Amino acid sequence: MTYCVGLYLKDGLVMLSDTRTNAGIDNISVFSKMHIYEIPDERFLTVMTAGNLGVSQAVVNMLHEGIDTGERLETLYTVPSMFRAAQLVGEAVRRVYRTDGPTFEAQQIKFDVSILLGGQLRGRGMRLFQIYAAGNFIEATPDTPFLQIGETKYGKPILDRVLQYDTDPADGVKLVMVSMDSTLRSNLTVGLPIDLMVYRRDAMKAETRRRITESDPYYQIIHNGWSEALREAYRAIPRPNWIR
Amino acid sequence: MTYCVGLYLKDGLVMLSDTRTNAGIDNISVFSKMHIYEIPDERFLTVMTAGNLGVSQAVVNMLHEGIDTGERLETLYTVPSMFRAAQLVGEAVRRVYRTDGPTFEAQQIKFDVSILLGGQLRGRGMRLFQIYAAGNFIEATPDTPFLQIGETKYGKPILDRVLQYDTDPADGVKLVMVSMDSTLRSNLTVGLPIDLMVYRRDAMKAETRRRITESDPYYQIIHNGWSEALREAYRAIPRPNWIR
Repeated sequence: MTYCVGLYLKDGLVMLSDTRTNAGIDNISVFSKMHIYEIPDERFLTVMTAGNLGVSQAVVNMLHEGIDTGERLETLYTVPSMFRAAQLVGEAVRRVYRTDGPTFEAQQIKFDVSILLGGQLRGRGMRLFQIYAAGNFIEATPDTPFLQIGETKYGKPILDRVLQYDTDPADGVKLVMVSMDSTLRSNLTVGLPIDLMVYRRDAMKAETRRRITESDPYYQIIHNGWSEALREAYRAIPRPNWIR
Repeated sequence: MTYCVGLYLKDGLVMLSDTRTNAGIDNISVFSKMHIYEIPDERFLTVMTAGNLGVSQAVVNMLHEGIDTGERLETLYTVPSMFRAAQLVGEAVRRVYRTDGPTFEAQQIKFDVSILLGGQLRGRGMRLFQIYAAGNFIEATPDTPFLQIGETKYGKPILDRVLQYDTDPADGVKLVMVSMDSTLRSNLTVGLPIDLMVYRRDAMKAETRRRITESDPYYQIIHNGWSEALREAYRAIPRPNWIR
């Protein structure tokens, strides 16, 4: 399983993914699910993937090597806009489906992939998309400033309650770390280390890229501090007065 | 969808269910999913159901009307133990499956039902079981003092972090209310009102049975207080010092 979350904030993007993959729970590995496509001062894109690892890697490879769209070989390094980038990721998903889909169907394997794509090209808007297994996609907006893929439920309540479009990216890091920690705790197939990327709007480069391991001091603050804070919050709520 | 949670605590049982059912999201109704089987001073059992409403109601009706086990008509009012009660619920599930299963399969409808059964018979132990769609079951223990059915994920992190076997039942009420509130907030197919039952070990009757609506003062305390407490907890955690 996988958990990836992307925040689309007034001042930037925050993206976080775990690194655990499993083929059955007795076969667990570490694979980065975060991929950066960067041309300094020109474009900065981040892709995070969830679902079948073979499909995810095929899509990512295709985005690296280029997709022949008739006129030219198009990659995330050449697309003229974030919208076109989302279309290209969708096209890569559809091409992998055309290759792998029939065999998957014959073997009753689900064609399961979902992708978050965030970034900005110089002079254009910063955007965050979620691309589905059918190759179609949706976009985050100020009304719903986060998107999640993979094991999304354990980490959603804190985002539903606290996150807003004008949340500062540094606070966004706190929130995605709490969201991830809740997920790690409740689903063993989501695992450390985790990959974090913070992008400040119009920067055209990552402000922070960080692999966070169990011994990371800030992860420890979140992991221990949030549990304690929750217990404290729960103690602060009064008992019902209709129970002795 | 449905969310039901049962706590198996040193001093008693706490059981909570929502009341929303839906056949498609454009067809929403209120049905109680909590059923009490009580003979004062002799036995007290509570059943909560999730899954296909037709299957759930068929099982509950069968438990009321009795299952012919060859020698006699057995109901939850006549079983000699909680273990036998769990077996009887499992048998009811299997009988409904034998009747409905083939048509469900032909129409590609999932035979989907899960049940929580908690209670006590005089002179015997208090127990809490979860019965699956196959009719088999598991039991809560001091190591894992809660069981959930239906939409379980949104409300699980708070239980994972805070609940213990020796949690007081009044605090258990707080916890299941918070767990339910997180679920209500993140999944619209789980809905108010909610049904609460608190049983004190060896009491042989419910200490509290309460239908909780949106205007319930304690629900309001949980609903508003927990959101505020979470925001406060999140503010109290420091930002990472490696982000400006």
